[in-house]
Amino acid sequence: MTASSLSPQTTKVAEYLFLRFRQLGIESVFGVPGDYNLRLLDFLEPAGLHWVGNCNELNAAYAADGYARVNGNGLSALITTYGVGELSAINGIAGAFTEKAGVVHVVGTPSRSLQRDRTLVHHTLADGDYRHFAAMASHVTKAQTNLTDPRTIPEQIDWALEQALIYSQPVYIELPDDVVDVAVLAARLANPLSIPASPRGGDGALTEVLEHIYDSQRPLILVDGESRPLRIIDQVEELVNITGWPTWTSIFGKGLVNESMPNVYGHYRGSLGPKDWESYFESADLIINLGPHYSDTNTYTFTTIPREAVSISLSLDTVKIGAKVYHDVGNGFLTQLLQSLDKTRIPKVGGPPKTTTPYVGPKADEAIAQASFYAFVNQIFRENDLILTETGTAGHGGRQFKLPPRSRLFGPATWLSIGYMLPATLGVTVAKRDLTKNSNARAILIIGDGSLQMSAQEISTIIREKLNVIMFIINNSGYTIERAIHGRKQAYNDIAPWRHTKALEFFGAEEGQAKNSFVARTYGELGRVLNDERIRNGGGLRIVEVFMDQEDVQGALLHLMEKQIAAEKQ
Amino acid sequence: MTASSLSPQTTKVAEYLFLRFRQLGIESVFGVPGDYNLRLLDFLEPAGLHWVGNCNELNAAYAADGYARVNGNGLSALITTYGVGELSAINGIAGAFTEKAGVVHVVGTPSRSLQRDRTLVHHTLADGDYRHFAAMASHVTKAQTNLTDPRTIPEQIDWALEQALIYSQPVYIELPDDVVDVAVLAARLANPLSIPASPRGGDGALTEVLEHIYDSQRPLILVDGESRPLRIIDQVEELVNITGWPTWTSIFGKGLVNESMPNVYGHYRGSLGPKDWESYFESADLIINLGPHYSDTNTYTFTTIPREAVSISLSLDTVKIGAKVYHDVGNGFLTQLLQSLDKTRIPKVGGPPKTTTPYVGPKADEAIAQASFYAFVNQIFRENDLILTETGTAGHGGRQFKLPPRSRLFGPATWLSIGYMLPATLGVTVAKRDLTKNSNARAILIIGDGSLQMSAQEISTIIREKLNVIMFIINNSGYTIERAIHGRKQAYNDIAPWRHTKALEFFGAEEGQAKNSFVARTYGELGRVLNDERIRNGGGLRIVEVFMDQEDVQGALLHLMEKQIAAEKQ
Repeated sequence: MTASSLSPQTTKVAEYLFLRFRQLGIESVFGVPGDYNLRLLDFLEPAGLHWVGNCNELNAAYAADGYARVNGNGLSALITTYGVGELSAINGIAGAFTEKAGVVHVVGTPSRSLQRDRTLVHHTLADGDYRHFAAMASHVTKAQTNLTDPRTIPEQIDWALEQALIYSQPVYIELPDDVVDVAVLAARLANPLSIPASPRGGDGALTEVLEHIYDSQRPLILVDGESRPLRIIDQVEELVNITGWPTWTSIFGKGLVNESMPNVYGHYRGSLGPKDWESYFESADLIINLGPHYSDTNTYTFTTIPREAVSISLSLDTVKIGAKVYHDVGNGFLTQLLQSLDKTRIPKVGGPPKTTTPYVGPKADEAIAQASFYAFVNQIFRENDLILTETGTAGHGGRQFKLPPRSRLFGPATWLSIGYMLPATLGVTVAKRDLTKNSNARAILIIGDGSLQMSAQEISTIIREKLNVIMFIINNSGYTIERAIHGRKQAYNDIAPWRHTKALEFFGAEEGQAKNSFVARTYGELGRVLNDERIRNGGGLRIVEVFMDQEDVQGALLHLMEKQIAAEKQ
Repeated sequence: MTASSLSPQTTKVAEYLFLRFRQLGIESVFGVPGDYNLRLLDFLEPAGLHWVGNCNELNAAYAADGYARVNGNGLSALITTYGVGELSAINGIAGAFTEKAGVVHVVGTPSRSLQRDRTLVHHTLADGDYRHFAAMASHVTKAQTNLTDPRTIPEQIDWALEQALIYSQPVYIELPDDVVDVAVLAARLANPLSIPASPRGGDGALTEVLEHIYDSQRPLILVDGESRPLRIIDQVEELVNITGWPTWTSIFGKGLVNESMPNVYGHYRGSLGPKDWESYFESADLIINLGPHYSDTNTYTFTTIPREAVSISLSLDTVKIGAKVYHDVGNGFLTQLLQSLDKTRIPKVGGPPKTTTPYVGPKADEAIAQASFYAFVNQIFRENDLILTETGTAGHGGRQFKLPPRSRLFGPATWLSIGYMLPATLGVTVAKRDLTKNSNARAILIIGDGSLQMSAQEISTIIREKLNVIMFIINNSGYTIERAIHGRKQAYNDIAPWRHTKALEFFGAEEGQAKNSFVARTYGELGRVLNDERIRNGGGLRIVEVFMDQEDVQGALLHLMEKQIAAEKQ
């Protein structure tokens, strides 16, 4: 698309916005229609955008969050209606804010005259105040803008999108119903948006980091989850490759670096992991800490945070060397570092021995259990798979996966809103399809029966979009992760029993597809399911219900469960 | 329960709170467990409270809203967890705020020490600021309080509950995980909470209102929806009864006064209703306007608002006579009025003639259509039924119902969040069961297929609670109300097709109950369904899917649809 093809003197606001979306690599838009956004939705198809209508707005926000985490520019779009729609979505927006996904949330609002006159229309609090919801959104979005004046609208849109681009966080755009087709100057469209160039404020840092690298004797690389919003995944892989240094990820960072590289160990678990990993960490004299994100759930309750004295931490706008902080380094710092690096001076170091014990599968008549399930399912993973594990036992289990190259893992990091992962599966799969133009892009979701109930209706959208998804439902009769934390036998951790094998049929799968439901209680059964041609090479949504014990947990959760049982005995 | 039985010197915070709930007539509590509220949930059962675990928090908030609208004291309780849970619920809270339902929202939050240290725990925005969500809640709740200091906690709880009582609006209570079992003084529990007595600020108003009543020649009574939060339903009925004056309701007020009384006409529609109603309204010299609520959707776009010059409007804290406002009149004003009224001086007036055309049913082979469906279904309504019509064509259709005595109607008023009515059905039915101790209290829900997808999972909670509910699903292939407003043929108004007849089975109905699914396309079929013994006298959830045309609308919606079709032809 050339500049000249974009420059009629004016364009309509909706056209402007949607052309910006296309320029930024957004091909699909999530949301729910509502009477204050219908006129806006008319412009989607003419702009070449694919509308994924969701069952409700929270699910739409979750899907948009997933899309942004996969899409090249880290952005996605969500359209809701004023009040009822946007507030339904706000928990999903808060998750995107916390874990950094650039969801552009466009809210269709009542016309400017209704707002000016403080008219008591529906979807307001009936108090004449139209500013409540923007105020609420300001807590969980990086930027907010209200498109009321055509003289400044192009600039406002660009500013908001740029904020989403720079920070990979949601932004909030209010678009009054009567502004949708107002004319604005199109001139700015000739310049596609991008992350503004760095003022190279980190120059001093660069020299210092290089010295630390050349001088190190026991260095390591730690890839944390904010490497993704930093958009440095490719550079991280290059750094890991050219240094050959021992590399770990955090929980949040898992799946962001190719685990089949010989110097990549997996995710670091502190005292809960291998002892020789821990001692290497503790004696390290340099930790290159990429995209740190220090929540309790991403750091084994703060125990895996690298020692500041030996760390170089690269964040969104700072490089921290020991206790010293360099501001304004920009996203390009790692690229500069790679360009400046004298490869001959990089110390060659070996990490702890990498032991690969051959996989011994469970016996066929063995009941499926948390301890052995994840390694068993791991066998079907392929290159380019999108793998999603919902908060709960699945999220804990997924940390053990050995991920194939170019696959991605999405697990719980910090927001941990159960119900997220199913609509996110929709979002990441649509994003991968848009990005690769491969309509068969595959996702594998592992989710518990409790979480499923939060957002189950989005199964129908996955079916309608004809996505290639394998969904494992862990049926363990309720909120097992909560049972581990507290209330092991309490009724409040029970849920209503659903017949999962009827899901495909209920949610509208075509006759042939509706039969792609499987059940397994033993590994023999599960093995047969995984070998079924429909699982191996089929398309569309397939559901595998696996039964596990109500109190079956492992790892850190097992520790909690055992503590509780001990306390009960007192 | 006597004061002495309540007065051990101290009690635990959770015990204090839950005993207050019981004193206020709350018997069931809605919500979802989460790791910051589990310890609180432990206290529910010992307090004699029934826990209704919902599938997600938005549905729980909707259910709690419904409960409050039926419960005697106008209150209900909702428990969620910090961040993820409370934000999921916030759209439901905003609806309760707008349409006035006293939902007491208790949020289990991280312990005080975690908060004090700004610890970056999960379910926060990972920025160390624990005050975001309370700030967001302040926009849509009447009162907010954070229970951190045992010296003031009893007072804080009482103040918040009193606010909910007085204003019938949601309140927000933060309860840190470590405070749940802290000891507080129990002394206040000896005095049950109630709405504080009025300072009788309205004394001048009383005399003036009496004079207007005695002097009127063409008076009428208009019952609007805020008569419910005003808690004057019984007094309204008495006023309508002893005056014998022509009485109408608003849309929001429908169902709040006994429609089988001879002087009750139905809901007033301005120029869209009978001409003689309109001319009576327009020539009235006194309109007793009870609980006014002036949103566009409750006033036929502001056309049915009574003329100020002839109106006496009774609101939550004011009486307005013409343009003159009396403040601080208190909830007791109508009671005072009834006590002071000299019945011999009440003018006897007849309203417009009441024409009752005998019901002529449609032909058996006639396809089910909006215009004739509601009157047809109306035939099965009984005394004490709870009838719910979801926003959309159902909400519009439900306005025509002739309601049996002691039944209640719940339809869209102002917030109009689609997805509300199904969980609200759960809430109102549980409330009625709690209130009447009748486990067979019956609800009838009419809902469109688009709205259903928003919150469908709550079907499983209705099943689990073994509630007596008949649910009509209007299958018209998408958002027909949106099609009427805009985008008649647009794909964004389509939805994924579900197989509704599988819902009971999927959502866990027991073998026998799972078969209580019916389908009708013609009135002959529908007639047979309604005569089925399982519908007439059965229990549990029964689902009737009725098919209607995608563009079938009536009334104000038909007008919109026709305008659109005309515009398309231009």
